[in-house]
Amino acid sequence: MKKYEIERRVEYYEADTTQKLSLPMILNLAVLASKNQSDELGVGQDYHLAMGLGWVILQYEVAIKRRPKVGELMRIQTYAAEYNPFFVRRPFVFFDESGDEIIKVSSIWTMLDIKNRRMARLPQEIVDKYDAQRVKQVPRIPNPIKITDDDTIIENDYHVRYLDIDANQHVNNSKYFEWMQDVLSPEYLMTHEVTHINLKFENEIRLGHTILSQVVLGDGETRHRIMMGDTVSAEAEFKWREL
Amino acid sequence: MKKYEIERRVEYYEADTTQKLSLPMILNLAVLASKNQSDELGVGQDYHLAMGLGWVILQYEVAIKRRPKVGELMRIQTYAAEYNPFFVRRPFVFFDESGDEIIKVSSIWTMLDIKNRRMARLPQEIVDKYDAQRVKQVPRIPNPIKITDDDTIIENDYHVRYLDIDANQHVNNSKYFEWMQDVLSPEYLMTHEVTHINLKFENEIRLGHTILSQVVLGDGETRHRIMMGDTVSAEAEFKWREL
Repeated sequence: MKKYEIERRVEYYEADTTQKLSLPMILNLAVLASKNQSDELGVGQDYHLAMGLGWVILQYEVAIKRRPKVGELMRIQTYAAEYNPFFVRRPFVFFDESGDEIIKVSSIWTMLDIKNRRMARLPQEIVDKYDAQRVKQVPRIPNPIKITDDDTIIENDYHVRYLDIDANQHVNNSKYFEWMQDVLSPEYLMTHEVTHINLKFENEIRLGHTILSQVVLGDGETRHRIMMGDTVSAEAEFKWREL
Repeated sequence: MKKYEIERRVEYYEADTTQKLSLPMILNLAVLASKNQSDELGVGQDYHLAMGLGWVILQYEVAIKRRPKVGELMRIQTYAAEYNPFFVRRPFVFFDESGDEIIKVSSIWTMLDIKNRRMARLPQEIVDKYDAQRVKQVPRIPNPIKITDDDTIIENDYHVRYLDIDANQHVNNSKYFEWMQDVLSPEYLMTHEVTHINLKFENEIRLGHTILSQVVLGDGETRHRIMMGDTVSAEAEFKWREL
């Protein structure tokens, strides 16, 4: 397997009120590292778009030991670990300046045929470049525990904004983290630090939609759901440490 | 005067649906350049916070020849141009890789006594570091033309989100650009490119507020107002080029 690494400093506008790297930025930086690797291997966006294909992330698992502060330098390391004809698993590790692993991400990716929005077989010539391990079954991330009808749901609606949309005309994945975090009260957010996230995407969201961010408060954990009308767009489980 | 420069590449999550640097990011990068200069001169955030003072931007004027695309490398140059006991004017120039000036920003800054939220005299030992020109009157940016009662106003409300707030517990300045842009229809935004912005801040916004973003459409220009109840929080004029 081919490891790839980027180095980034946390800038003030990438932090939240705690002065630490925001949750959406963790995702953005992970995706940046994988994009840069693909570009370097000659199979970046231009290459797969020319084949009518786009990468899509299906699920994320994020383990946070500590979020780095504004001014801290991070190294973000990634590689394609395992693949089969339809899925790739890609881990990411965020190291701080003393070499400690502070954030670990696992992610499951697939490719979409852009015209008919259907899952596509991963082209062998693309997969070969990453030097990943061919497996029968790509190791799965467990499903987040679902919200049920018996749960007490707190919810808030969010209108999809022009700047939530990326160049692919879809909501940037990292926005889901913002909606899921924002529905929690400032009091909760200021007294709890997130330690673990498991987020599974179900259905895409586009400009003009209004989504409902739902949360159920548990003991040291929260369960989340993003709804577009009756359709589930994403589900997640967050674990928290009291401050 | 002491010029200072940073170099940055436009990353995918810093662009909007046009694949070009988003309006809020123009502001974020300008402020980053001035922050880095202040740090290098030894009068950064730690220094002025210890005096109970914080920098505040009162007004921005932005002239956009073209916004750089994802992957482009920019140089952002800044210096403190003129100052008097209360105000500093700081210009910024964004250069592209061929050395063309693609974005120019002028900005007026003051310092706030953080405890009583009042304007403070600029400490001479801070101002001296920037080697700016002492003047009687800092050149003013004209006021944006106001929205009046006769205008046909289009408006949308925005709830201030947890991630809109920066480490100073106030809304990040760049969010005003998002609210002002987002109230325009996707059809307008996809057929017009902004060429000039004049934005004046009036009153701070905090977490939990809901603001109203108002816009009046003119011929090649839009006039904007951000309201917090009856209080004007900011006013702006945007000029647009049809695509």
